[in-house]
Amino acid sequence: MPQIKIGDYLFKRLHELGIGSVFGVPGDYELALLDLVTDNDLQWKGNPNELIASYAADGYARVKGAAAFVTTFGPGELSAYCGMAGHYCEFVPVVHIVGYPTVAAQRSQAIMHHSLGDGRFDMYENMAKHITAATTVITNPPTAAAEIDRVLNTMMRNQNADRDVPTGAVRHQVLSEVNELIQLTSFPTFATAMGKSGVNEELPNFGGIYGGAGTYPGVKKAIESSDAVLWIGNFPSDFNTGEFTTAVKEEITIDFQRFSVKITWNPFPVETFSDSDELKQDFLWPAILVTAYMTRKALGPFFRAGDVVIGETGTSAFGLCDSKLPKGVMMFNQTVYGSIGYATGSIVGVGQAIQESGGKWKRPILVTGEGSMHLTVQAIADMLRWDLKPIIFVLNNGGYTVERLIHGKEASYNEVAIYDYSALAKAFGPAYPAKYHGPVKTCGDLTKLLKDPEFGDAGCFELVELVLGQLDAPGSVIKTGAAIDEFNKAKAQKTVPGG
Amino acid sequence: MPQIKIGDYLFKRLHELGIGSVFGVPGDYELALLDLVTDNDLQWKGNPNELIASYAADGYARVKGAAAFVTTFGPGELSAYCGMAGHYCEFVPVVHIVGYPTVAAQRSQAIMHHSLGDGRFDMYENMAKHITAATTVITNPPTAAAEIDRVLNTMMRNQNADRDVPTGAVRHQVLSEVNELIQLTSFPTFATAMGKSGVNEELPNFGGIYGGAGTYPGVKKAIESSDAVLWIGNFPSDFNTGEFTTAVKEEITIDFQRFSVKITWNPFPVETFSDSDELKQDFLWPAILVTAYMTRKALGPFFRAGDVVIGETGTSAFGLCDSKLPKGVMMFNQTVYGSIGYATGSIVGVGQAIQESGGKWKRPILVTGEGSMHLTVQAIADMLRWDLKPIIFVLNNGGYTVERLIHGKEASYNEVAIYDYSALAKAFGPAYPAKYHGPVKTCGDLTKLLKDPEFGDAGCFELVELVLGQLDAPGSVIKTGAAIDEFNKAKAQKTVPGG
Repeated sequence: MPQIKIGDYLFKRLHELGIGSVFGVPGDYELALLDLVTDNDLQWKGNPNELIASYAADGYARVKGAAAFVTTFGPGELSAYCGMAGHYCEFVPVVHIVGYPTVAAQRSQAIMHHSLGDGRFDMYENMAKHITAATTVITNPPTAAAEIDRVLNTMMRNQNADRDVPTGAVRHQVLSEVNELIQLTSFPTFATAMGKSGVNEELPNFGGIYGGAGTYPGVKKAIESSDAVLWIGNFPSDFNTGEFTTAVKEEITIDFQRFSVKITWNPFPVETFSDSDELKQDFLWPAILVTAYMTRKALGPFFRAGDVVIGETGTSAFGLCDSKLPKGVMMFNQTVYGSIGYATGSIVGVGQAIQESGGKWKRPILVTGEGSMHLTVQAIADMLRWDLKPIIFVLNNGGYTVERLIHGKEASYNEVAIYDYSALAKAFGPAYPAKYHGPVKTCGDLTKLLKDPEFGDAGCFELVELVLGQLDAPGSVIKTGAAIDEFNKAKAQKTVPGG
Repeated sequence: MPQIKIGDYLFKRLHELGIGSVFGVPGDYELALLDLVTDNDLQWKGNPNELIASYAADGYARVKGAAAFVTTFGPGELSAYCGMAGHYCEFVPVVHIVGYPTVAAQRSQAIMHHSLGDGRFDMYENMAKHITAATTVITNPPTAAAEIDRVLNTMMRNQNADRDVPTGAVRHQVLSEVNELIQLTSFPTFATAMGKSGVNEELPNFGGIYGGAGTYPGVKKAIESSDAVLWIGNFPSDFNTGEFTTAVKEEITIDFQRFSVKITWNPFPVETFSDSDELKQDFLWPAILVTAYMTRKALGPFFRAGDVVIGETGTSAFGLCDSKLPKGVMMFNQTVYGSIGYATGSIVGVGQAIQESGGKWKRPILVTGEGSMHLTVQAIADMLRWDLKPIIFVLNNGGYTVERLIHGKEASYNEVAIYDYSALAKAFGPAYPAKYHGPVKTCGDLTKLLKDPEFGDAGCFELVELVLGQLDAPGSVIKTGAAIDEFNKAKAQKTVPGG
């Protein structure tokens, strides 16, 4: 029987999934395994820490379809759990490969480094089971290949749920939210065949099932004459659209997909700002994003086909989502799990995936707040040394702005360190070219930057520092924050006897 | 009955444990709780990420006796798991306080942010149970105080195991290592009363129990006339020492304690280096540490009473442990769990604890490799903004040196980013004074620095960049690395059928 090393088998399988690079941090339990990465036509893309490796893998998988990262037993794997829970929660197919102590060491309950010193070796896998679709510990060579296949198959099937199970929004476990939305808004509600049974059809505002030309005439007329349609997990397959006869105009739809929201109208009023005004988010987002505004100012939109844009959880994601995007732009954020620091790590994987996309994708663009960036700021070193040429917008607004809006507007716990953003590229990669733009403090500063033809095309790392007020945010965020503050105040009144 | 808020009760209890500062990262699930930190005479010391918060709490607890940090549900707590496993493994009493969604939200299985989007809320606690001494989720106000007391009592009892249970090395679960050492070395072995039954008394080299003046004459003579004695978990209590009549000379002992190894002889040969020689670890450690060498060079030792020194896992810990320390120096590392990046986060807590020690402790000193520092480098921002005045030695040796010695001497996976260490303080805290010393490339450079009377007394953040060869390490590390490499090579030959 032909023989193959377990590591070679694993990496060949990853290669077959379209993976071209492996992220991670080396450790002595898996150093020999790492030699096999390049043996199997994969690039090793090591990161400064495991959390960043897990985020980079996430970004890579969202662009390339799958990703892998390697860490060591114990500290390595535990440091990546936050990233792994995000993969699981948001259906991003990432395999985490962990180098373990030998079977002999485990059976003898030796006190190995990176264990808890108590002779146990199964506790980390037991923890990981809560935040993964599948796990295995390879201890038996004859079943190793089958185990690897089982886990990788589960990973791919789990993320591809919407491609082989006909339930759209249903499979993505947002049904309770959808039904709440329907009840709260009383909007007329329709479903497609794939979503049949997903929404409560006993509600007075349930209108029926829509399937293009084949639809019951009354339902068809109601939908096709609407001023606006919210698509939730829309899945325009042949059977789901009456063989592609859907006649809902794209410009009136908001398309909620698993990893993105596509909005095709302009919610922003065209505000009137003067060049000397302090920069505000209500100016920022239209200035960067909205074509109508751009036309007025004789600027093109900053984003263009081939861009992959990540908006960090916080005002960045809110601001970016309420936008009209040019065709061919990919944009995502980590909606449900919402771990800040994610975006700065994830853009590393996006940049690497862009390099491997054969020209399909072009610019990695990160939009983040400074407090979020601080969690994983050393990812900048990887962006520089791998020549990923990201364009980074940092909203420097004096701390955790969303938290301030929710509670503690002036509280010290919402402060963060004050960096010199112009010094970051020099500190993290002095050998590589980089451009700093800023500090952008006024509307006029931003307009001038957006007019600079080299901005966004410098062919190297570019970082824009946008200076904003501590409590400045899109109006929707300010309102949501106030509601949560009220909710928390009620909670904080809970008392306990004694003391 | 008098009433007290649950948060006030918790923070009053922490204050009673001697805790003066609380570390962490704010999140909207616990913002209202954070208001109560300062209400209860505790300082809030927020960190750039949760891993750093957990490490800072660890360092603080090792100096002050206990520590606390606060994070949010999901991403916040999972990001700290690596630090928590280190607390548990190394018996460091740290409480991790997590802000959870409301009981109502949990009961309704709502899709809350930071959950996994599947209506579950108990998975994170189930994970944490594997790496903690005790957990509780406070959902019922009438039992909240009792639950808080139960968890805090367990935390303090767990760390104080050696103070109320008479088994020294036994309680610290290193018995299998001790017995292996005894068998491998065939050293004559004795125990104290507290360690009775801990070692295999059937071994031919077991000699008896030693208890000072009260000891059986033959045993007493054998120990007291030895050239060197290894104390493992030595616990010099009254009953354990024949009422303090132990007559083993301190200068011939190596004292293995839970968090430190105290060696009281000088293992370094006095090497002859010239000023123009490239800096080497065999020169470095005696130059910084060893009094005999210092005397020869007319220098005092760099360390002095009041210093708290952390050696990062790797060559730093090995180099520091083989040393003779002046009296009144505290030194530790994370021996068993061995998570790199730990030391750079932990020194933040040490620095804070020093500020609260009323002059008992003076200088926080960090010795780390650059690859390790990169994991948690943004902790520098906290050192600067809180004016902790650390002295940092960075061994810049072109990657993961211990890993290189084990496997992959030239492998790309053992490379790390190349920083400009002179730019770090400017990037992370431009408003604060800081000194950069280096790059120190030769033995003469180091001697000159050590002779500078301001070095180590500048009254601000000081960072020394020590440039060392990629494969340079203390001789003991080089030998251990080669042995592990052999071991891994055998493991890598395992093959799997198929392919």
